[in-house]
Amino acid sequence: MPEPTPRPDLDLLFRPRSVAVAGASTNIDSPGHDYVQSLRDFGFEGPVYPLNRSAGEVAGYQGYMSLLDVPGDVDLVISCLPAGAVLDLIGQCRERRVRFLHLFTGRFSETGDAEAAALELRIAEAAREAGMRILGPNGMGLYHPAAGISFRPDLPHAAGRVAMISQSGNNAIEVVIRGVARGLAFGKVANYGNGADITPGDILRYLADDDETAVIGGYVEGVADGRGFFEGLQSAAARKPVVIHKAGRTAAGAHSAASHTAALAGSSELWSAAIRQAGAIEARNQEELLDMLVAASLTQRARGRNIAVAGGGGGRSVQSADACEENGLTIVPLPEAVRERVRARAPQLADWIGNPVDQSILAGSGLSSNGLLELMLADDAYDLAIANVGEDWFFGRPDAAERLTHACERLIAVIDGTPKPVGVVLGATETTNHEHRTLIDGIRDRFAESGIAVFPSIERAAFAFGHLGGGPH
Amino acid sequence: MPEPTPRPDLDLLFRPRSVAVAGASTNIDSPGHDYVQSLRDFGFEGPVYPLNRSAGEVAGYQGYMSLLDVPGDVDLVISCLPAGAVLDLIGQCRERRVRFLHLFTGRFSETGDAEAAALELRIAEAAREAGMRILGPNGMGLYHPAAGISFRPDLPHAAGRVAMISQSGNNAIEVVIRGVARGLAFGKVANYGNGADITPGDILRYLADDDETAVIGGYVEGVADGRGFFEGLQSAAARKPVVIHKAGRTAAGAHSAASHTAALAGSSELWSAAIRQAGAIEARNQEELLDMLVAASLTQRARGRNIAVAGGGGGRSVQSADACEENGLTIVPLPEAVRERVRARAPQLADWIGNPVDQSILAGSGLSSNGLLELMLADDAYDLAIANVGEDWFFGRPDAAERLTHACERLIAVIDGTPKPVGVVLGATETTNHEHRTLIDGIRDRFAESGIAVFPSIERAAFAFGHLGGGPH
Repeated sequence: MPEPTPRPDLDLLFRPRSVAVAGASTNIDSPGHDYVQSLRDFGFEGPVYPLNRSAGEVAGYQGYMSLLDVPGDVDLVISCLPAGAVLDLIGQCRERRVRFLHLFTGRFSETGDAEAAALELRIAEAAREAGMRILGPNGMGLYHPAAGISFRPDLPHAAGRVAMISQSGNNAIEVVIRGVARGLAFGKVANYGNGADITPGDILRYLADDDETAVIGGYVEGVADGRGFFEGLQSAAARKPVVIHKAGRTAAGAHSAASHTAALAGSSELWSAAIRQAGAIEARNQEELLDMLVAASLTQRARGRNIAVAGGGGGRSVQSADACEENGLTIVPLPEAVRERVRARAPQLADWIGNPVDQSILAGSGLSSNGLLELMLADDAYDLAIANVGEDWFFGRPDAAERLTHACERLIAVIDGTPKPVGVVLGATETTNHEHRTLIDGIRDRFAESGIAVFPSIERAAFAFGHLGGGPH
Repeated sequence: MPEPTPRPDLDLLFRPRSVAVAGASTNIDSPGHDYVQSLRDFGFEGPVYPLNRSAGEVAGYQGYMSLLDVPGDVDLVISCLPAGAVLDLIGQCRERRVRFLHLFTGRFSETGDAEAAALELRIAEAAREAGMRILGPNGMGLYHPAAGISFRPDLPHAAGRVAMISQSGNNAIEVVIRGVARGLAFGKVANYGNGADITPGDILRYLADDDETAVIGGYVEGVADGRGFFEGLQSAAARKPVVIHKAGRTAAGAHSAASHTAALAGSSELWSAAIRQAGAIEARNQEELLDMLVAASLTQRARGRNIAVAGGGGGRSVQSADACEENGLTIVPLPEAVRERVRARAPQLADWIGNPVDQSILAGSGLSSNGLLELMLADDAYDLAIANVGEDWFFGRPDAAERLTHACERLIAVIDGTPKPVGVVLGATETTNHEHRTLIDGIRDRFAESGIAVFPSIERAAFAFGHLGGGPH
């Protein structure tokens, strides 16, 4: 068996002590401004050196004509220069002993142009000779709020322990914006673009041992170094949950991937098998990726697959049962102990009520689905639970806002009171009623602040829990 | 071949000239108030007779002690009485020659109690003898805004041509609220509950020839009269698109369905085959049902399966290609004529740009993805299109609101200018930025008002178009 590849030392990439931005710009509608502004807005603590021909100030930092002019050491250079200027920049980096170069710069192999692809190879070689490493080209680079770094100034500042590697920049941005709205807090996020030097496998190997990283998501279109990637994946997945969204599965998708990041997409079946063998979990789209990151990051792993479901009307109960069983979760009938508790309060319901708990038949009984959920979670029969908020029912009642808020606060208390994983289903804000939109958004925020895993549909909740499986993460 | 069952005459059910509500209540937190208030708020034009023991006024209508006391003829009685009072009510209906009785009243066969189930049978028999028909029991009944009828006062008032039959009341409400937010306008919606007399097959046969109905959705947990159901389904699907969400597919789902509407769920595979053979389309969940109703109702049916995709970044392009091909749509390469138009404006992009159009590589070229979409739609190579708004990219730019709004208005103009079906992908409002939430909701409203089909993800758009297929609806 070959020696395992050593863990790449990417600490200084994610936590540079100083950053220079080549091609920094005073035009606020340009990446050359965004990177500098992000360092300022995210509170990067070390020196920041904007580099541009006029040596003008950018986002409040003193500018310099050239990397050679800056007064201190530089760990990371971010390049927004055109492709033709990069070799020259590498020469300067070598002189200043820069450790990492992130090339936002694109128009290399992804264009399909042979000269542009050859330049990319020369750049990777020059960096190797200069003893430095390159992230990119054609990538947004880093979002690492704990270190004061972001590829866009408008992203959330809260720092957490969800890492994400992404071949696509826009996809990384979408995952961050949407994930944070659902209660995720990100640690190290890297968009590596063409991955000409630092590969996704390198980053995975690094994240495997990274104490700041508890859960890893990945968006991959294709990799040049398959063996390195799967070594990295295996080493990461052995230590923490890793969810991989492999795109470019179809012929058309692979063709599109080639013109996006010059990725060699490879067979979809081989990828699925390899992800599984590495111990990671495959997502088929961004929603599945987010759902599984939410479940893995915000809940403990379930001891087993026996699930309790409560809330929503009868139709939702039927749909919940289908969704759970179709995702390998077992709808265990209501235990006799719980049934007896119902009998004491509402004898006429004791033989009728079941799992999933249909909230509508509890009306007028003095029992609530949250109360039943609490009883079920306390019973050994269940390993995990899903609670349907059933907001559309509340919308039809007087004092909808108060009643819905009250029910959700009670649900939060029930979830806080159990170590078992509980997912909450709260629909998207698909309503023409603006008050209800604000109400639903506010309640989703409240769940997210409380660290509760929220899903927009019962099917997505059941999919996430079903695919994460039972036993420790 | 047996004679086809005659079309049931349900005109008076959906357009009664007068309505009495038995068990009408002054308590605004009760169904007995909701039904009366709905008739008032939806502008029902005929007489409305609230019936209750005190003969008190309800929602502004004069009350009566009994159906026997009301001054005029009654086409439809809505019952909110307890189960034990229904036989007596039927006797009064018979005396007053009432044509339709909707039983919101529940606690019959769905409770699993033998006596309650026997009472349901006796009620159906008594109604037959009285020459009247029953909708329900255990159902919310009707939402038909064009006739001034609604099962809840808070639902949207706009009337349209999407019909929906649903075994579950909450599911019907969810489909209406969410569907209207996505631009659907409903005609006849019926929640038939236990379906003890009027069956879903009856309603489908009726809707088949109904001029007000252009598209039909259905949520079914199980049917007692399988042959009648599939006759109705076949006759409706021969005339208009019909999408059926069959729930109770799993053992647990079927068990839950029995306690919800006493439904006999049947084998999932048989159902899928029968839906397909009837010429209808199967949805596996509420989201798929809504997505296909949106596509079928808001777009013409595509001539074929060759699709153009534009907008969003490179990652979205790869994901779009996967989603289209995995749903049986063909990503046709950019035709030479379109490529030549690109060459004239931006020669360096002409050999790089493809279908899906990656918006991010157009930056600075003077070309936009909307412009390319327009060229592609004008080309015979394409039968339909999907446009990714790519809102998360805009959020990172200065003047995000203006630029996003401008791009979406341009997109609306492009879609208005083509007879080909075009779906728009605009994400859910999953962001912690409240301004962006309001912006996205407003833009979704604008698309909906413009009659444009909007989907929350590329996968859902591709699924809907892929499953509706090509050729005339």
